Amino acid sequence: LITLVPIRGIAEIVPGDCLADILAAALAANDLVPRNDDVLVVTSKIVSKAEDRFRRLDRVTPSDAALDLSARALKDPRLVQLVLEESTAIVRVALNVIIARHRLGLVMANAGIDASNLGRDRADQVLLLPSDPDASARALADALERVGSRPAVVISDSFGRPWRMGVVNVAVGVSGLPAIVDRRGERDRDGRELEVTQVAFADMIASAAGLVSGEAAEGVPAVLMRGWTPPAGDAPAVSLVRPVDQDLFL
Amino acid sequence: LITLVPIRGIAEIVPGDCLADILAAALAANDLVPRNDDVLVVTSKIVSKAEDRFRRLDRVTPSDAALDLSARALKDPRLVQLVLEESTAIVRVALNVIIARHRLGLVMANAGIDASNLGRDRADQVLLLPSDPDASARALADALERVGSRPAVVISDSFGRPWRMGVVNVAVGVSGLPAIVDRRGERDRDGRELEVTQVAFADMIASAAGLVSGEAAEGVPAVLMRGWTPPAGDAPAVSLVRPVDQDLFL
Repeated sequence: LITLVPIRGIAEIVPGDCLADILAAALAANDLVPRNDDVLVVTSKIVSKAEDRFRRLDRVTPSDAALDLSARALKDPRLVQLVLEESTAIVRVALNVIIARHRLGLVMANAGIDASNLGRDRADQVLLLPSDPDASARALADALERVGSRPAVVISDSFGRPWRMGVVNVAVGVSGLPAIVDRRGERDRDGRELEVTQVAFADMIASAAGLVSGEAAEGVPAVLMRGWTPPAGDAPAVSLVRPVDQDLFL
Repeated sequence: LITLVPIRGIAEIVPGDCLADILAAALAANDLVPRNDDVLVVTSKIVSKAEDRFRRLDRVTPSDAALDLSARALKDPRLVQLVLEESTAIVRVALNVIIARHRLGLVMANAGIDASNLGRDRADQVLLLPSDPDASARALADALERVGSRPAVVISDSFGRPWRMGVVNVAVGVSGLPAIVDRRGERDRDGRELEVTQVAFADMIASAAGLVSGEAAEGVPAVLMRGWTPPAGDAPAVSLVRPVDQDLFL
């Protein structure tokens, strides 16, 4: 039995906020006492806000490359400049679509740069991904441990996918559980080798939490998952990035 | 609060089994009384078994095209023949990898043909996807309604993804909930239009259930999800297939 509990009542996060203190208070206000075997799922948005990953577009000067790319995609050249700065490669371009390989390896629309629900008085700003989401997850687990227990932490974001419509939530930062588990060598009930050899548990956890957190005005930026027995291991979210030389689609 | 409950004690499914009766009995044995607002998630594997989608490889004669493709991928030419019969296009080929566009539009390794956990005495057999998983989901909901209530039904399978390592569970059949929800026109808390306009809820439900079902010997083929408030609508799983003319990656 797995339960997913929304952690309600978290106020707008602003730069400099201590996420661990805010989450600990919100957990207590929701009558939740986190345990070492829980998983706390938080959106990358609140992590980025706490880490002040805001950028003011009026302070960005687009390069020639950004101007060219913005003309092809019909996107704000200042946003495109930030996409180029955040990424190592542009994967696909179409009308209003730029899919980039973020320097962390994540292949995402706009290199993960976010412009929704940024908070008041941020009309001309955007929000970058946390600079090192695995480190952010670890730091959050460390800080929570100081105030009580050490749940695993998953930092989630919503990704589009090739071939399938719509976005799903995936893990961009992980601490305290294996983001991916390799089952090579395991056998099925009848003794055949398993065909599915690697399972992206952290992405499935992010998606499960996405069902309770939502994206719109009523969005809840943190979810406590209880009752899941993690396989052994501690692979970070960067393990979920398919190496370029193994990728048939780059 | 969402709960995900594994439905334990389901015996090996064989062709001709009435899945609804078996699931109803297993739900009762797990002290679960399904409700109209629950979501029952079942693996495509047990649906295919009940629908007798087994194929004996010794009865398959590979075509020239299958022989060519099997030489490129180093896969059993009889399996490759079935992949070709099940699909409308071959998307990518590499050593031991054939990614095909299944006739339902699903882009999957081996066109979704499965060779693990098939049951005893099926060493030289494989299992195709259900012929129409949305119809299977609807039929299962209809049959469950006759014995009590009508939960929504999601039929799940595990898919690899471009760019990211490992598989996650997604929805291949859906009844009674919107597989995908279009939020175009909705605004965020600050009045900006939402950037994330379509959310693939059924895929996130399949992934959530995948956390409790697993793939190996201890696998549980059905999960009851309770406490999720679905958005309005009833889009089937085929709505999750990105039309070829909108796909940047085909």
